Amino acid sequence: MGKKIVTLDGNEAAAYSAYHINEVIAIYPITPSSPMGEFSDEWSAKGEKNIWGTVPQVTEMQSEAGAAGAVHGALQTGALTTTFTASQGLLLMIPNMYKIAGELTSTVFHVSARTLATHALSIFGDHSDVMSVRQTGFALLASNSVQEVADMAIIAQAATLESRVPFLHFFDGFRTSHEVMKIELPSFDDMRAMISDDLVAAHRERALSPDRPIIRGTAQNPDVFFQAREASNKFYLACPDIVQKAMDKYASLTGRQYHLFDYVGAPDAERVIVIMASAAETTQEVVEYLLNKEEKVGVVKVHLYRPFSVKHFIESIPSTVKSIAVMDRTKEPGGIDPLHLDVIAAFSGRNNPPRIIGGRYGLSSKEFTPGMVKAVFDELLKDNPKERFTVGIEDDVTNTSLNYDINFSTEDSQGTRAIFFGLGSDGTVGANKNSIKIIGEDTDFYTQGYFVYDSRKAGTLTVSHLRFGSKPIHSIYLIGGANFVACHQFSFLERYDVLKYAQPGATFLLNSPFGPDEVWDYIPRTTQEHIINKKLRFFVIDAVDVAHKTGMGGRINTIMQTCFFAISNVLPRDEAISAIKNSIEKTYGRRGPAVVQQNFAAVDSALDQLFEVKVPDKVTSTFDIRPPIPEEAPEFVRHVTAKMISGEGDLIPVSDMPVDGTFPTGTTKWEKRNIAIENTNWDLKFVYNVVNVCLFVQVSTIRSKVYSS
Amino acid sequence: MGKKIVTLDGNEAAAYSAYHINEVIAIYPITPSSPMGEFSDEWSAKGEKNIWGTVPQVTEMQSEAGAAGAVHGALQTGALTTTFTASQGLLLMIPNMYKIAGELTSTVFHVSARTLATHALSIFGDHSDVMSVRQTGFALLASNSVQEVADMAIIAQAATLESRVPFLHFFDGFRTSHEVMKIELPSFDDMRAMISDDLVAAHRERALSPDRPIIRGTAQNPDVFFQAREASNKFYLACPDIVQKAMDKYASLTGRQYHLFDYVGAPDAERVIVIMASAAETTQEVVEYLLNKEEKVGVVKVHLYRPFSVKHFIESIPSTVKSIAVMDRTKEPGGIDPLHLDVIAAFSGRNNPPRIIGGRYGLSSKEFTPGMVKAVFDELLKDNPKERFTVGIEDDVTNTSLNYDINFSTEDSQGTRAIFFGLGSDGTVGANKNSIKIIGEDTDFYTQGYFVYDSRKAGTLTVSHLRFGSKPIHSIYLIGGANFVACHQFSFLERYDVLKYAQPGATFLLNSPFGPDEVWDYIPRTTQEHIINKKLRFFVIDAVDVAHKTGMGGRINTIMQTCFFAISNVLPRDEAISAIKNSIEKTYGRRGPAVVQQNFAAVDSALDQLFEVKVPDKVTSTFDIRPPIPEEAPEFVRHVTAKMISGEGDLIPVSDMPVDGTFPTGTTKWEKRNIAIENTNWDLKFVYNVVNVCLFVQVSTIRSKVYSS
Repeated sequence: MGKKIVTLDGNEAAAYSAYHINEVIAIYPITPSSPMGEFSDEWSAKGEKNIWGTVPQVTEMQSEAGAAGAVHGALQTGALTTTFTASQGLLLMIPNMYKIAGELTSTVFHVSARTLATHALSIFGDHSDVMSVRQTGFALLASNSVQEVADMAIIAQAATLESRVPFLHFFDGFRTSHEVMKIELPSFDDMRAMISDDLVAAHRERALSPDRPIIRGTAQNPDVFFQAREASNKFYLACPDIVQKAMDKYASLTGRQYHLFDYVGAPDAERVIVIMASAAETTQEVVEYLLNKEEKVGVVKVHLYRPFSVKHFIESIPSTVKSIAVMDRTKEPGGIDPLHLDVIAAFSGRNNPPRIIGGRYGLSSKEFTPGMVKAVFDELLKDNPKERFTVGIEDDVTNTSLNYDINFSTEDSQGTRAIFFGLGSDGTVGANKNSIKIIGEDTDFYTQGYFVYDSRKAGTLTVSHLRFGSKPIHSIYLIGGANFVACHQFSFLERYDVLKYAQPGATFLLNSPFGPDEVWDYIPRTTQEHIINKKLRFFVIDAVDVAHKTGMGGRINTIMQTCFFAISNVLPRDEAISAIKNSIEKTYGRRGPAVVQQNFAAVDSALDQLFEVKVPDKVTSTFDIRPPIPEEAPEFVRHVTAKMISGEGDLIPVSDMPVDGTFPTGTTKWEKRNIAIENTNWDLKFVYNVVNVCLFVQVSTIRSKVYSS
Repeated sequence: MGKKIVTLDGNEAAAYSAYHINEVIAIYPITPSSPMGEFSDEWSAKGEKNIWGTVPQVTEMQSEAGAAGAVHGALQTGALTTTFTASQGLLLMIPNMYKIAGELTSTVFHVSARTLATHALSIFGDHSDVMSVRQTGFALLASNSVQEVADMAIIAQAATLESRVPFLHFFDGFRTSHEVMKIELPSFDDMRAMISDDLVAAHRERALSPDRPIIRGTAQNPDVFFQAREASNKFYLACPDIVQKAMDKYASLTGRQYHLFDYVGAPDAERVIVIMASAAETTQEVVEYLLNKEEKVGVVKVHLYRPFSVKHFIESIPSTVKSIAVMDRTKEPGGIDPLHLDVIAAFSGRNNPPRIIGGRYGLSSKEFTPGMVKAVFDELLKDNPKERFTVGIEDDVTNTSLNYDINFSTEDSQGTRAIFFGLGSDGTVGANKNSIKIIGEDTDFYTQGYFVYDSRKAGTLTVSHLRFGSKPIHSIYLIGGANFVACHQFSFLERYDVLKYAQPGATFLLNSPFGPDEVWDYIPRTTQEHIINKKLRFFVIDAVDVAHKTGMGGRINTIMQTCFFAISNVLPRDEAISAIKNSIEKTYGRRGPAVVQQNFAAVDSALDQLFEVKVPDKVTSTFDIRPPIPEEAPEFVRHVTAKMISGEGDLIPVSDMPVDGTFPTGTTKWEKRNIAIENTNWDLKFVYNVVNVCLFVQVSTIRSKVYSS
């Protein structure tokens, strides 16, 4: 049977594997795990069967506490049972998790790891949620990429059935969960090979049943509780080897070999970073870059965090290592962060242990870039490195942060790196996901898509980051140097520096109401400077006009997608257009041939209206990108809020942030929400305003969804 | 103002201090923390005022999640707010705890630390609950004794107001929470001196108020969340010194000096135990015993566990130390236990670190005795000690356990150690609490009372353990060698080996329907052997008869109490009787003079009916203590359940316990619930059965309370 190559995100990958090897799924969706529950619910409703030919039962409970209780109960009936959650949702499962683990019950929870609310809520990702349950008795297994998510979900299920230790399988929320990648989909045959019928039968035998009455979940007193608690030791001691065995078997089936701790680096490395989940990929990319420069570095990618096998961990690290930096994506105030503690303890009592320092990074999806990885390796070279540090921010209060070079790049210079600026619901993200699928299916390229949404009420910007190329992609961070930039909304030019990340020689595609001969005068000064200085190729299309004339209304997404393919040369133009049309038929076919034909017409017209602009040789603009807020705004708004609005929030130092999440009120009035063009004629303003109103309604709907999550 | 000396338990001590320095108390009672909420509720209902002259508002919520939410909300209005909880209750508070800490909100939660339910529920004590919240950003402050509970509750409140770090103040559930001790009650003046008006005003200034509008609890995005999270660092860095400053100030007021880490031992110690909460007291007792034998040992008693100040910790330990054992009262399967990890990390990177091993003890209130402490110190002498061990059990599966000498004793040989066997509701516990108060108030003795209830449905035994003497009591374990044993129910002789822990030369008081001349023949063989071999003095009283004749019905408690004072000589007999009568007036005065006179008569008659038995010089009994279950019981019941019934459950090895809490059903039918005498005449049987039926009704009520907790 051939390998099935698909393009999907981490949530779908987790749901795919989990759905097909379970029977009961109890859910209470929470961002960013919701799609796992939603996919499962949809598949169950459609009668999609698992590997045993039955349709899993998906039930939404009243809260995550209820979901955990339902999972606990279903497991006690012998059903193979799972759930999906994140963040505060996981916290509500804690009481049941202690019970499920104490009763040595086989299950896997799939978690898109998300920040816990502290001084502020965050829907984004870090490991504060999964680290808060590391003491429950669950095993913790981390996936670093979308492919790993699909794979580890199965490995975890195999291991939990054999070890009887319940598993929490996690991956980075709002990174891996929402990152679209081309992966090999695990086959049913592989799943069947991994999930032993005998072990499933043994799981059922342990169920509570009137046929074999037993009692479980009693109260115990001081006389015997302690002994009974220690009676589970042997299961935890056996667990790491069982996981490795499952990984080895999976490798024999699929060719993809994992280890509890995967080491990548020089066999005689002197400096090593220990890290978990998606940031391990970026670290690997930098390690490979530095290896080419003959630096003695390496990375340990932690997969099985609990039970933490000191033996396997120590074996994974070259004996030549002199210093180690342990990276935690969580913060535990008043204590040392968890992975750092475990690594220190692993070396405790050994002769000549390496120097071990610990760093915190990436809280709430803060980017972890090659420059930051490099800064950590540089820190390890120092005679007196910071024992505990942060990286990715400027901590000018307690001086924990490392300096790093924001321009340091290890991105694959051969591949395509494309950035698209779109409005919340203008279809840009959908079209880009579609483009990735087309490229993934029609080429041998590796592909990656990641989509940045602004969850702030003031913003409706979406930025799509697409990478593809002939090398495996370990760049798990936003594109730093783009060779293609598309701006799907002309009005963005006034508000955002859209060409900031364009590389010299890159291509710029602009949706513009102004034609190739007049557009230059409507472009802000900074943008003109980028175009000239970076020698960009510059294309315009009036997608709004094309959409209007082909009856597409405000839907410009397929038009812009067509132009992207036409000028990026990722695929031969005809092939690309044929693929776009195929996908249009798939997406809109059920809405009738008229809609399909409208879209076809839009695609065809797009190419007629796509023009390259002859770039003048000097900056002529009389205006520039607008300041994000007016000068009369209060000090905090000018100093802090303004940076957040203009996308420079990453540069705000610690000293400028409130210590306890307390903000001044009434700051939103300084944020301009309405995205419209001012320096143009009335007709155009009218068109844009109408579009904006329509979009506003749709965006409001999305907002209310985001805020209810 | 004179010092106020009182006799109370840890829950009352915590409630006393917490109530008087707070304004809002949101509760949802859970065993063993319930009395803290109940005391507060009662005081509030009675109009008892706090140190500012207002009556705290006590509100019971729908669950601990609600209590935590109410606390969070009340704190945001600027009210000084507290709550009391334990175990699963604390788990439900976790989401709010992250928020309260993230917002740097001053509060103290008081927790009677209790086991979390895993393979089985347990209402008893260990640190699994408080350790499960160590990552929330709360400070964790441990009290080791009832006196410390009263004191640390105030120190924590002072420190939280100054540091803005919220505190979780904890003490051992079902040990310190229920141990009755004579302590010095903190005065209102001392509380006022500790709680700064300026800091209270600052707390109120931070409240949400329409007068000073601010916004708190917003959503933050990847751009700024990380920086904002690090903005709290300086508060956590400052916290340990603030706590020490509060401790120093408290010492200047009360003379009781605490440190973040209190070291007791040789200045040139080579072996040190690091331990937290009540077991630190027992360890100190053994250290002092070994110091007298010139062994170079010491103990670090951890008070401030979070923030963990490495600097203060290292300073507390003599530089001569060669090996350290870190004792954890929690189990985190798949990882190293938490205090062990922190101590390893504290020494990380230092030159010539001591050898550090870690042990687990005392889960679910498993006793931690001097013999176990000695075993840990002995282990530290070995060339190859176990790196991770358990103590207090026999782990014959994974061989983690240390052997220990169950006869090793460091109890104060000069003091009185009295054990009383009573029936669930026969008043024995109440009378003993009363006796301790009398002794505490009328003598300079240090006093301690601890009461063991059997939460198993089959048992209604209560065993009271009373200690008093001229030395401070650090024996935080059940009495191992009693010089006074009282059995308040004759029928117990057939079921329990009540004289097992009687020391040679001890006194035995028996409530017996048989007089001094005939009782010998009704005593089982084992008990006769104890009396003869240990040369016990043996007294009998027919308390049932005295109670009957003085109109007391089945209430034998004051009669037995009178006999105890009469023969123990703790107080001069007249003084004791006068004190008992005073306390009778206090207790029963409101029920009218007739009841008081009845009790007085019972006291006076008791002494007339108290007889010393002339002990024969040989064993004559033709029967012995009944086997706990019949021989035809199934194997598991004979092998495991039987030991639990007969009070030998501590001796059951790990290999005999189910690994996942699964038990066979239908075992209760093998347990005899009805406690009655069989080898006696019909009249006596009738009396006893009537008593038993009455007791059964009361006991059932208690049971339903226990099981609903």
